[in-house]
Amino acid sequence: MTVSDLTERELIKRIAERLQPPPGWLTVGIGDDAAVVEPERNRLEVLSVDAIVEGVHFDRRFTPPSAIGHRALAVNLSDLAAMGAAPRLALLSFVLPPALLRDDFDALVSGLAALALRHKLHVVGGNLTRSPGPLMIDVSVIGTAKRRQVLTRAGARPGDALYVTGSLGGAAAGLEILRQTTGAGKEAKHPAGSEAGAQGFERCANRYLYPEPRVRMGLALGRNRVASACMDLSDGLADGVRQIADASGVGIIVDANALPVDGDARAWFDAQGDDTLTKAITGGDDYELVFTSPPKGNGRLGAAIRGAGVPVTRIGICTKAHDLILRRSSEGPPKDEAIPSGYTHFR
Amino acid sequence: MTVSDLTERELIKRIAERLQPPPGWLTVGIGDDAAVVEPERNRLEVLSVDAIVEGVHFDRRFTPPSAIGHRALAVNLSDLAAMGAAPRLALLSFVLPPALLRDDFDALVSGLAALALRHKLHVVGGNLTRSPGPLMIDVSVIGTAKRRQVLTRAGARPGDALYVTGSLGGAAAGLEILRQTTGAGKEAKHPAGSEAGAQGFERCANRYLYPEPRVRMGLALGRNRVASACMDLSDGLADGVRQIADASGVGIIVDANALPVDGDARAWFDAQGDDTLTKAITGGDDYELVFTSPPKGNGRLGAAIRGAGVPVTRIGICTKAHDLILRRSSEGPPKDEAIPSGYTHFR
Repeated sequence: MTVSDLTERELIKRIAERLQPPPGWLTVGIGDDAAVVEPERNRLEVLSVDAIVEGVHFDRRFTPPSAIGHRALAVNLSDLAAMGAAPRLALLSFVLPPALLRDDFDALVSGLAALALRHKLHVVGGNLTRSPGPLMIDVSVIGTAKRRQVLTRAGARPGDALYVTGSLGGAAAGLEILRQTTGAGKEAKHPAGSEAGAQGFERCANRYLYPEPRVRMGLALGRNRVASACMDLSDGLADGVRQIADASGVGIIVDANALPVDGDARAWFDAQGDDTLTKAITGGDDYELVFTSPPKGNGRLGAAIRGAGVPVTRIGICTKAHDLILRRSSEGPPKDEAIPSGYTHFR
Repeated sequence: MTVSDLTERELIKRIAERLQPPPGWLTVGIGDDAAVVEPERNRLEVLSVDAIVEGVHFDRRFTPPSAIGHRALAVNLSDLAAMGAAPRLALLSFVLPPALLRDDFDALVSGLAALALRHKLHVVGGNLTRSPGPLMIDVSVIGTAKRRQVLTRAGARPGDALYVTGSLGGAAAGLEILRQTTGAGKEAKHPAGSEAGAQGFERCANRYLYPEPRVRMGLALGRNRVASACMDLSDGLADGVRQIADASGVGIIVDANALPVDGDARAWFDAQGDDTLTKAITGGDDYELVFTSPPKGNGRLGAAIRGAGVPVTRIGICTKAHDLILRRSSEGPPKDEAIPSGYTHFR
């Protein structure tokens, strides 16, 4: 059975059944021309939209429907996290090929709903339309934050330290592993030789399929007012560093040796004969946060980190000079190189 | 030159250049992970999202880029109008084929921006992504309304009169005319035989390409608290009547002879040998409002109509019985027939 065997109303009912009960502040919910909500008092609203498109952001040959739903929302929650905002509501816009299986539709919605529940986000409305081609999901989210707790990309100052949450490269390795194991990409040069290796590769795959947006960390950074600039790593660390530097008018030196490269990812990249460091700083989809913090705020930073329960690593420093430098200093004098450009043509 | 010759940043700049200056309530605008806005005091927020997809909602062979941009926003403004809300802000999500011409991109954005300007709506953020297939535009809008002025589909009562704004069938005729004149559909049986006929057909085409959402009328109905139920006619009058009846728990009798069928559309449908009435009540894309009003509110209804400057026609009445009836009463005793079902499979 496919979605084309159902009416739009039946599909909407299947979505509503998988969501939390509507909150008290939702005055008019799913089923009218629009949703009506009461704004939260004394809060600013933080708004973001992101689309994921089959063939561009995911490959249905190795991305299960639940992961498609999870990722569609995760990319938006990550944007809210980067602003220090608490998730509040979402609008879903599904563009669905008529041949999509009903069970896959249900699994997709369930994957999205499970992540929404964990982050106390309510789906208040949406839109369903047919796709003549790829499956697309566009999610708009609104979060809330107090005025003084909003994080932007623009506040880094020379002397601020640069930090990153979690680890790098896991999702990029996971994508390669998924492509290889499903025959959708180049063959792996060294498949996992052991059970431990196989488990590591599976962890990478799950980093790609089910990224965990750093919502608690973003909130903790905002509440403790410890980050001078912050953004999420949807497009990789190199891009993130460049965006913060551009928006803040600073340069940044990244200490290559300090980068928290994911251990499983390192095993994979090493086995492929790839430069692990390059892969880890250019690979996207990790959805970690990169942020800067003034040297004086270390106590509050410690509190924020403990509150969020996510590892945080100091990886560099902001400078007056506007260069973006990757500094390798493992042996002998430090070797500086330019951080690869994030500017690419729209493609 | 195509959009793939530009960077994402350059494309965003081209959008920003075509928009109004950012309003004071926009704390963080285009260029960060998310937009940050101050909510409007003492207002509810009305949220809607709608996608338009190439090959489903428009055909690029006869829909100029400016009309694509206009329609992408108009469908959302129409939803706000149906709720009695004042437009405030929008997020744009563009999914673009890399081969889209830069000039077409500019025209698309300009078409959208011109409509936004007229309705005092600010674009506060968005997302750009590549499409492996169709051009798609997903727009999320937020409007505001006082609590007691929100219009829903659910308040119609037996005895309430049914009204529709403007005229019906123009957009449906326009779509047929555009298909015919560009060779994208069946051949017209009787092309416009005169200059007056050709002008009429052009008016229909423009009704389809550049629909005028009834924002002022929706606001006037909300402010005068004269409509017991309201929705917009994106999917045609038959669908709208059914939705209001279902949501309100009433039946509706529509007086076929009272329907304000567009004169140019009538000329087209008559020439094609089609049943004009059926075309006018099932044809979509008119973006008129259909609403119900209690018999006692006629004075306030008059004030609302005068304020909005849009013709309004009384076309029926709500009943206790749950049937949906189209009553033809031109000669002899009235002939009743069931209003065609709006329930169709997702396709």
